[in-house]
Amino acid sequence: MADAPATGARRALYLEDLAVGDRFTSGTHALDAEQIKTFAQQFDPQPFHTDEEAAKATFFQGLAASGWHTAAITMRLLVDSGMPLAEGIIGSGGELHWAQPTRPDDVLHVESEVVEIVPSRSKPGRAMVQMHCRTLNQRGELLQSFKPKLVVTKRPAAQPA
Amino acid sequence: MADAPATGARRALYLEDLAVGDRFTSGTHALDAEQIKTFAQQFDPQPFHTDEEAAKATFFQGLAASGWHTAAITMRLLVDSGMPLAEGIIGSGGELHWAQPTRPDDVLHVESEVVEIVPSRSKPGRAMVQMHCRTLNQRGELLQSFKPKLVVTKRPAAQPA
Repeated sequence: MADAPATGARRALYLEDLAVGDRFTSGTHALDAEQIKTFAQQFDPQPFHTDEEAAKATFFQGLAASGWHTAAITMRLLVDSGMPLAEGIIGSGGELHWAQPTRPDDVLHVESEVVEIVPSRSKPGRAMVQMHCRTLNQRGELLQSFKPKLVVTKRPAAQPA
Repeated sequence: MADAPATGARRALYLEDLAVGDRFTSGTHALDAEQIKTFAQQFDPQPFHTDEEAAKATFFQGLAASGWHTAAITMRLLVDSGMPLAEGIIGSGGELHWAQPTRPDDVLHVESEVVEIVPSRSKPGRAMVQMHCRTLNQRGELLQSFKPKLVVTKRPAAQPA
């Protein structure tokens, strides 16, 4: 079983290392207006993501990160420090929700919890692990909630715990 | 009501222009290994997204795009040509599913459909519009399904249809 919280953990966890209720906390990522605009110019070129002045008159009332930017930073935090799975973080998707806009001065981190573990019927060494990953800013405000189903495998026979 | 399909449409649609069943088809985006690796190095640095050789021995059995890369390209296609909403594409999230890996030679497009329109009780000029956005490759294979809820507003009084 994993310790909780395993901040910045780099350990390689397999299926038998996980239990429902295990929690992980990632490191942090400091955002700024330049990052927001650079991502948006490539993937989500709408005024509220690319131009501080134009953003003021929009729904967001100021520059906000693309939700996909928040999601991408979340993934980077999970890969680097937030979810130390031995075979990698491999998901088929899940329910994604942006609770409030991510702003230029936000410092993001991700808190994750194992919600459910469903062993595969067809593949004995494998399970679908439901996680709940919450992306928060430095004030503890929820920016994004994601509930991915991940493919997690057992430790190979040759590799001791 | 919007025409179906409205390939490459640049018209600025408001709430009263939308009806359940309306469909939109985006332009295309041709992926390649360099784009996959560049995105992954920044946001999802796992071997199956960053290294063709290392990827062969993984779950994906070859280089695959990060799911977040598929999602980001999908957004760009929607913004450029796939969903011509006057006030922009503003979503609070939704159910996201990656049906199969996106590969280096894939050419992506997005087919979207209006599934449900729920008028806001508190804000008369606004509704939550449930869409179903399917990202497909050049063989018509489903890569990603996303069911966002979008904020859509009525045409301003001063602006004729």
